[in-house]
Amino acid sequence: MNTHVHADHVTGSGLIKSKVPEVKSVISKASGAKADVLIEHGDKIYFGDLFLETRATPGHTSGCVTYVTGDGPDQPQPKMAYTGDALLIRGCGRTDFQSGNSEQLYKSVHSQIFSLPKDTYIYPAHDYKGFTVSTVGEEMLYNLRLTKDEDTFKGIMANLNLAYPKMIDVAVPANLVCGYQDLIPKSC
Amino acid sequence: MNTHVHADHVTGSGLIKSKVPEVKSVISKASGAKADVLIEHGDKIYFGDLFLETRATPGHTSGCVTYVTGDGPDQPQPKMAYTGDALLIRGCGRTDFQSGNSEQLYKSVHSQIFSLPKDTYIYPAHDYKGFTVSTVGEEMLYNLRLTKDEDTFKGIMANLNLAYPKMIDVAVPANLVCGYQDLIPKSC
Repeated sequence: MNTHVHADHVTGSGLIKSKVPEVKSVISKASGAKADVLIEHGDKIYFGDLFLETRATPGHTSGCVTYVTGDGPDQPQPKMAYTGDALLIRGCGRTDFQSGNSEQLYKSVHSQIFSLPKDTYIYPAHDYKGFTVSTVGEEMLYNLRLTKDEDTFKGIMANLNLAYPKMIDVAVPANLVCGYQDLIPKSC
Repeated sequence: MNTHVHADHVTGSGLIKSKVPEVKSVISKASGAKADVLIEHGDKIYFGDLFLETRATPGHTSGCVTYVTGDGPDQPQPKMAYTGDALLIRGCGRTDFQSGNSEQLYKSVHSQIFSLPKDTYIYPAHDYKGFTVSTVGEEMLYNLRLTKDEDTFKGIMANLNLAYPKMIDVAVPANLVCGYQDLIPKSC
Protein backbone atom coordinates (compact mmCIF):
# COMPACT_ATOMS: atom_id res chain seq x y z
CA MET A 1 0.00 0.00 0.00
CA ASN A 2 1.52 3.25 -1.16
CA THR A 3 0.58 6.64 0.27
CA HIS A 4 1.91 8.47 -2.79
CA VAL A 5 4.49 8.57 -5.57
CA HIS A 6 7.71 9.28 -3.68
CA ALA A 7 10.36 11.45 -5.29
CA ASP A 8 13.32 10.40 -3.19
CA HIS A 9 13.26 6.61 -3.12
CA VAL A 10 11.60 3.69 -4.85
CA THR A 11 8.51 1.89 -3.52
CA GLY A 12 9.00 -1.63 -2.21
CA SER A 13 5.87 -2.87 -4.01
CA GLY A 14 7.85 -4.27 -6.93
CA LEU A 15 10.32 -6.11 -4.72
CA ILE A 16 7.51 -7.58 -2.58
CA LYS A 17 5.63 -8.69 -5.70
CA SER A 18 8.78 -10.33 -7.08
CA LYS A 19 8.96 -12.49 -3.91
CA VAL A 20 5.23 -13.03 -3.40
CA PRO A 21 3.51 -12.68 -6.78
CA GLU A 22 -0.01 -12.85 -5.28
CA VAL A 23 0.55 -9.51 -3.51
CA LYS A 24 -1.42 -6.61 -4.99
CA SER A 25 0.09 -3.13 -5.09
CA VAL A 26 -2.19 -0.26 -4.04
CA ILE A 27 -2.00 3.48 -4.78
CA SER A 28 -4.48 6.30 -5.30
CA LYS A 29 -6.12 6.84 -8.67
CA ALA A 30 -5.28 10.53 -8.28
CA SER A 31 -1.56 9.71 -8.23
CA GLY A 32 -1.63 8.83 -11.92
CA ALA A 33 0.52 5.78 -11.16
CA LYS A 34 -0.07 2.19 -12.23
CA ALA A 35 -0.90 -0.42 -9.59
CA ASP A 36 -3.04 -3.52 -9.16
CA VAL A 37 -5.56 -1.61 -7.08
CA LEU A 38 -6.33 2.09 -7.56
CA ILE A 39 -8.13 3.61 -4.59
CA GLU A 40 -10.09 6.80 -3.98
CA HIS A 41 -11.18 8.83 -0.97
CA GLY A 42 -13.49 6.76 1.20
CA ASP A 43 -12.39 3.37 -0.09
CA LYS A 44 -11.77 0.70 2.52
CA ILE A 45 -9.04 -1.92 2.29
CA TYR A 46 -9.71 -5.10 4.27
CA PHE A 47 -7.11 -7.50 5.70
CA GLY A 48 -8.11 -10.22 8.16
CA ASP A 49 -10.54 -8.72 10.66
CA LEU A 50 -9.14 -5.22 10.19
CA PHE A 51 -9.50 -2.52 7.57
CA LEU A 52 -8.02 0.82 6.60
CA GLU A 53 -10.01 3.77 5.29
CA THR A 54 -8.56 5.98 2.58
CA ARG A 55 -8.56 9.74 3.13
CA ALA A 56 -7.42 11.99 0.29
CA THR A 57 -4.74 14.31 1.70
CA PRO A 58 -3.24 16.05 -1.35
CA GLY A 59 -0.75 18.90 -1.12
CA HIS A 60 2.68 17.24 -0.88
CA THR A 61 1.70 15.54 -4.14
CA SER A 62 -1.70 15.67 -5.78
CA GLY A 63 -2.27 11.95 -5.21
CA CYS A 64 -1.33 11.68 -1.52
CA VAL A 65 -3.61 9.66 0.72
CA THR A 66 -3.68 8.87 4.44
CA TYR A 67 -4.78 5.41 5.55
CA VAL A 68 -6.73 5.34 8.82
CA THR A 69 -7.84 2.35 10.86
CA GLY A 70 -11.61 2.08 11.03
CA ASP A 71 -14.30 2.33 13.67
CA GLY A 72 -16.12 -0.68 14.98
CA PRO A 73 -15.79 -3.49 17.48
CA ASP A 74 -12.39 -5.23 17.34
CA GLN A 75 -10.85 -2.34 15.41
CA PRO A 76 -7.73 -0.73 16.97
CA GLN A 77 -8.27 1.70 19.82
CA PRO A 78 -6.80 4.32 19.71
CA LYS A 79 -7.01 4.63 15.93
CA MET A 80 -3.86 4.72 13.78
CA ALA A 81 -3.20 6.97 10.76
CA TYR A 82 -0.52 6.35 8.12
CA THR A 83 0.02 9.84 6.81
CA GLY A 84 2.78 9.38 4.24
CA ASP A 85 4.45 12.77 3.79
CA ALA A 86 1.29 14.83 4.32
CA LEU A 87 1.95 15.07 8.05
CA LEU A 88 5.37 14.31 9.52
CA ILE A 89 6.31 14.42 13.22
CA ARG A 90 6.58 18.17 13.94
CA GLY A 91 6.71 18.86 10.18
CA CYS A 92 5.25 17.99 6.79
CA GLY A 93 6.32 17.09 3.27
CA ARG A 94 7.56 19.78 0.91
CA THR A 95 5.11 21.28 -1.59
CA ASP A 96 7.39 22.63 -4.31
CA PHE A 97 7.19 19.90 -6.98
CA GLN A 98 5.08 16.96 -8.19
CA SER A 99 1.94 19.12 -8.16
CA GLY A 100 2.60 20.10 -4.55
CA ASN A 101 0.41 22.91 -3.21
CA SER A 102 0.80 24.36 0.29
CA GLU A 103 -2.76 25.70 0.50
CA GLN A 104 -4.10 22.27 -0.39
CA LEU A 105 -1.79 20.55 2.10
CA TYR A 106 -2.92 22.88 4.89
CA LYS A 107 -6.58 22.09 4.16
CA SER A 108 -5.88 18.35 3.86
CA VAL A 109 -4.15 18.10 7.24
CA HIS A 110 -6.68 20.25 9.06
CA SER A 111 -9.79 18.65 7.55
CA GLN A 112 -8.68 15.01 7.22
CA ILE A 113 -6.09 14.41 9.96
CA PHE A 114 -6.60 16.99 12.71
CA SER A 115 -10.31 16.05 12.66
CA LEU A 116 -9.43 12.56 13.94
CA PRO A 117 -9.58 11.79 17.68
CA LYS A 118 -6.67 13.42 19.50
CA ASP A 119 -5.32 10.08 20.71
CA THR A 120 -5.00 8.73 17.14
CA TYR A 121 -1.46 7.50 16.52
CA ILE A 122 0.34 9.16 13.60
CA TYR A 123 2.75 7.01 11.62
CA PRO A 124 4.45 9.15 8.96
CA ALA A 125 6.55 7.96 6.05
CA HIS A 126 9.76 9.60 7.26
CA ASP A 127 11.51 10.79 10.35
CA TYR A 128 15.10 11.87 10.57
CA LYS A 129 15.51 11.77 14.37
CA GLY A 130 14.34 8.25 15.08
CA PHE A 131 10.75 9.04 16.04
CA THR A 132 8.34 6.40 14.80
CA VAL A 133 5.04 7.57 16.21
CA SER A 134 3.23 10.72 17.28
CA THR A 135 -0.43 11.53 17.98
CA VAL A 136 -2.97 13.91 16.45
CA GLY A 137 -3.12 15.81 19.75
CA GLU A 138 0.67 16.24 19.84
CA GLU A 139 0.85 17.54 16.31
CA MET A 140 -2.10 19.90 16.83
CA LEU A 141 -0.13 21.46 19.69
CA TYR A 142 3.50 21.12 18.63
CA ASN A 143 3.79 20.72 14.86
CA LEU A 144 6.12 23.54 13.86
CA ARG A 145 4.28 24.27 10.61
CA LEU A 146 0.69 23.06 10.81
CA THR A 147 -0.07 24.88 14.07
CA LYS A 148 0.42 28.20 12.26
CA ASP A 149 -2.38 30.05 10.42
CA GLU A 150 -2.73 29.29 6.74
CA ASP A 151 -0.92 32.37 5.43
CA THR A 152 2.05 31.85 7.76
CA PHE A 153 2.15 28.19 6.70
CA LYS A 154 2.19 29.13 3.01
CA GLY A 155 5.01 31.58 3.69
CA ILE A 156 7.06 28.91 5.48
CA MET A 157 6.54 26.42 2.66
CA ALA A 158 7.42 28.96 -0.03
CA ASN A 159 10.75 29.70 1.64
CA LEU A 160 12.21 26.31 2.54
CA ASN A 161 14.87 26.52 -0.18
CA LEU A 162 15.34 22.76 -0.27
CA ALA A 163 17.64 21.03 -2.71
CA TYR A 164 16.11 19.18 -5.66
CA PRO A 165 15.95 15.45 -4.75
CA LYS A 166 18.94 13.72 -6.28
CA MET A 167 17.04 10.60 -7.28
CA ILE A 168 13.82 12.19 -8.52
CA ASP A 169 14.46 11.41 -12.19
CA VAL A 170 14.89 7.74 -11.34
CA ALA A 171 12.42 7.43 -8.50
CA VAL A 172 9.34 9.08 -10.00
CA PRO A 173 9.23 7.02 -13.21
CA ALA A 174 9.78 3.84 -11.15
CA ASN A 175 7.10 4.74 -8.65
CA LEU A 176 4.65 5.62 -11.41
CA VAL A 177 4.65 1.92 -12.27
CA CYS A 178 4.60 1.00 -8.54
CA GLY A 179 8.02 -0.53 -8.65
CA TYR A 180 8.10 -2.87 -11.61
CA GLN A 181 11.71 -2.43 -10.94
CA ASP A 182 13.39 -3.83 -13.98
CA LEU A 183 13.33 -0.19 -15.01
CA ILE A 184 15.79 0.60 -12.24
CA PRO A 185 19.54 0.09 -12.50
CA LYS A 186 21.09 -2.05 -9.73
CA SER A 187 23.01 0.83 -8.21
CA CYS A 188 19.76 2.35 -6.90
CA MET B 1 -2.45 4.14 39.92
CA ASN B 2 0.88 5.66 40.89
CA THR B 3 4.18 4.63 39.34
CA HIS B 4 6.16 6.05 42.27
CA VAL B 5 6.41 8.73 44.97
CA HIS B 6 7.07 11.87 42.94
CA ALA B 7 9.32 14.56 44.37
CA ASP B 8 8.22 17.45 42.20
CA HIS B 9 4.42 17.43 42.32
CA VAL B 10 1.57 15.87 44.23
CA THR B 11 -0.32 12.77 43.10
CA GLY B 12 -3.89 13.24 41.91
CA SER B 13 -5.07 10.19 43.87
CA GLY B 14 -6.32 12.28 46.80
CA LEU B 15 -8.25 14.68 44.59
CA ILE B 16 -9.84 11.84 42.62
CA LYS B 17 -10.84 10.07 45.84
CA SER B 18 -12.37 13.28 47.19
CA LYS B 19 -14.69 13.36 44.14
CA VAL B 20 -15.27 9.62 43.77
CA PRO B 21 -14.79 8.00 47.18
CA GLU B 22 -15.05 4.44 45.81
CA VAL B 23 -11.80 4.90 43.86
CA LYS B 24 -8.84 2.96 45.25
CA SER B 25 -5.34 4.42 45.14
CA VAL B 26 -2.55 2.08 44.05
CA ILE B 27 1.21 2.27 44.61
CA SER B 28 4.04 -0.22 45.09
CA LYS B 29 4.71 -1.75 48.49
CA ALA B 30 8.39 -0.95 47.92
CA SER B 31 7.61 2.78 47.78
CA GLY B 32 6.90 2.84 51.50
CA ALA B 33 3.83 4.99 50.79
CA LYS B 34 0.29 4.45 52.03
CA ALA B 35 -2.45 3.58 49.53
CA ASP B 36 -5.59 1.46 49.34
CA VAL B 37 -3.80 -1.17 47.26
CA LEU B 38 -0.08 -1.96 47.61
CA ILE B 39 1.29 -3.86 44.63
CA GLU B 40 4.42 -5.89 43.96
CA HIS B 41 6.32 -7.10 40.90
CA GLY B 42 4.12 -9.47 38.91
CA ASP B 43 0.80 -8.28 40.32
CA LYS B 44 -1.99 -7.72 37.79
CA ILE B 45 -4.57 -4.95 38.03
CA TYR B 46 -7.83 -5.67 36.22
CA PHE B 47 -10.26 -3.10 34.79
CA GLY B 48 -13.09 -4.17 32.49
CA ASP B 49 -11.72 -6.70 30.03
CA LEU B 50 -8.19 -5.32 30.31
CA PHE B 51 -5.38 -5.61 32.82
CA LEU B 52 -1.98 -4.14 33.58
CA GLU B 53 1.00 -6.11 34.85
CA THR B 54 3.35 -4.59 37.39
CA ARG B 55 7.07 -4.65 36.69
CA ALA B 56 9.46 -3.42 39.39
CA THR B 57 11.73 -0.81 37.78
CA PRO B 58 13.62 0.79 40.69
CA GLY B 59 16.47 3.24 40.24
CA HIS B 60 14.84 6.67 39.96
CA THR B 61 13.27 5.82 43.32
CA SER B 62 13.45 2.48 45.08
CA GLY B 63 9.71 1.93 44.68
CA CYS B 64 9.28 2.75 40.97
CA VAL B 65 7.14 0.39 38.90
CA THR B 66 6.19 0.19 35.24
CA TYR B 67 2.67 -0.92 34.31
CA VAL B 68 2.44 -2.98 31.12
CA THR B 69 -0.66 -4.14 29.26
CA GLY B 70 -0.96 -7.91 29.24
CA ASP B 71 -0.84 -10.70 26.71
CA GLY B 72 -3.92 -12.52 25.60
CA PRO B 73 -6.83 -12.26 23.18
CA ASP B 74 -8.54 -8.85 23.27
CA GLN B 75 -5.55 -7.25 25.01
CA PRO B 76 -3.98 -4.22 23.29
CA GLN B 77 -1.68 -4.89 20.35
CA PRO B 78 0.95 -3.44 20.29
CA LYS B 79 1.41 -3.51 24.06
CA MET B 80 1.64 -0.30 26.10
CA ALA B 81 4.02 0.44 28.98
CA TYR B 82 3.55 3.23 31.54
CA THR B 83 7.09 3.78 32.69
CA GLY B 84 6.75 6.66 35.16
CA ASP B 85 10.18 8.30 35.44
CA ALA B 86 12.20 5.09 34.94
CA LEU B 87 12.29 5.62 31.16
CA LEU B 88 11.48 8.99 29.60
CA ILE B 89 11.45 9.78 25.88
CA ARG B 90 15.16 9.99 24.99
CA GLY B 91 16.01 10.25 28.70
CA CYS B 92 15.29 8.93 32.19
CA GLY B 93 14.55 10.14 35.68
CA ARG B 94 17.36 11.44 37.91
CA THR B 95 18.93 9.07 40.41
CA ASP B 96 20.41 11.41 43.00
CA PHE B 97 17.83 11.35 45.80
CA GLN B 98 14.91 9.31 47.19
CA SER B 99 17.04 6.16 47.18
CA GLY B 100 17.87 6.68 43.52
CA ASN B 101 20.60 4.42 42.12
CA SER B 102 21.89 4.67 38.58
CA GLU B 103 23.19 1.09 38.43
CA GLN B 104 19.79 -0.19 39.52
CA LEU B 105 17.98 2.05 37.00
CA TYR B 106 20.18 0.79 34.17
CA LYS B 107 19.39 -2.82 35.08
CA SER B 108 15.68 -2.07 35.49
CA VAL B 109 15.29 -0.48 32.07
CA HIS B 110 17.33 -3.09 30.24
CA SER B 111 15.78 -6.13 31.94
CA GLN B 112 12.17 -4.99 32.39
CA ILE B 113 11.47 -2.49 29.58
CA PHE B 114 13.92 -3.12 26.73
CA SER B 115 12.95 -6.81 26.96
CA LEU B 116 9.41 -5.96 25.79
CA PRO B 117 8.48 -6.24 22.09
CA LYS B 118 10.05 -3.40 20.12
CA ASP B 119 6.67 -2.06 19.01
CA THR B 120 5.48 -1.61 22.61
CA TYR B 121 4.31 1.97 23.15
CA ILE B 122 6.12 3.85 25.93
CA TYR B 123 4.08 6.37 27.90
CA PRO B 124 6.36 8.12 30.40
CA ALA B 125 5.29 10.35 33.29
CA HIS B 126 6.91 13.49 31.88
CA ASP B 127 7.97 15.13 28.68
CA TYR B 128 9.05 18.72 28.27
CA LYS B 129 8.79 18.98 24.49
CA GLY B 130 5.23 17.80 23.94
CA PHE B 131 5.96 14.17 23.10
CA THR B 132 3.36 11.83 24.53
CA VAL B 133 4.45 8.47 23.20
CA SER B 134 7.54 6.58 22.09
CA THR B 135 8.30 2.91 21.50
CA VAL B 136 10.70 0.39 23.01
CA GLY B 137 12.46 0.12 19.64
CA GLU B 138 12.94 3.89 19.38
CA GLU B 139 14.39 4.18 22.86
CA MET B 140 16.70 1.20 22.35
CA LEU B 141 18.16 3.05 19.35
CA TYR B 142 17.90 6.71 20.28
CA ASN B 143 17.66 7.15 24.06
CA LEU B 144 20.53 9.48 24.86
CA ARG B 145 21.39 7.75 28.13
CA LEU B 146 20.15 4.17 28.11
CA THR B 147 21.82 3.28 24.81
CA LYS B 148 25.22 3.80 26.48
CA ASP B 149 27.11 1.06 28.31
CA GLU B 150 26.52 0.83 32.04
CA ASP B 151 29.66 2.67 33.16
CA THR B 152 29.07 5.57 30.75
CA PHE B 153 25.46 5.74 31.96
CA LYS B 154 26.56 5.90 35.60
CA GLY B 155 29.00 8.67 34.73
CA ILE B 156 26.27 10.68 32.97
CA MET B 157 23.91 10.29 35.91
CA ALA B 158 26.59 11.23 38.44
CA ASN B 159 27.27 14.50 36.64
CA LEU B 160 23.85 15.94 35.82
CA ASN B 161 24.20 18.71 38.46
CA LEU B 162 20.45 19.21 38.66
CA ALA B 163 18.86 21.63 41.10
CA TYR B 164 17.13 20.22 44.18
CA PRO B 165 13.35 20.09 43.47
CA LYS B 166 11.71 23.12 45.02
CA MET B 167 8.63 21.29 46.20
CA ILE B 168 10.25 18.09 47.47
CA ASP B 169 9.66 18.83 51.14
CA VAL B 170 5.95 19.30 50.46
CA ALA B 171 5.48 16.76 47.69
CA VAL B 172 7.18 13.73 49.20
CA PRO B 173 5.26 13.73 52.50
CA ALA B 174 1.99 14.26 50.60
CA ASN B 175 2.75 11.49 48.14
CA LEU B 176 3.74 9.14 50.93
CA VAL B 177 0.09 9.19 51.97
CA CYS B 178 -1.00 9.03 48.30
CA GLY B 179 -2.52 12.46 48.42
CA TYR B 180 -4.72 12.57 51.46
CA GLN B 181 -4.28 16.17 50.73
CA ASP B 182 -5.60 17.87 53.80
CA LEU B 183 -1.93 17.77 54.74
CA ILE B 184 -1.17 20.17 51.91
CA PRO B 185 -1.61 23.95 52.17
CA LYS B 186 -3.92 25.49 49.55
CA SER B 187 -1.14 27.38 47.82
CA CYS B 188 0.26 24.10 46.38
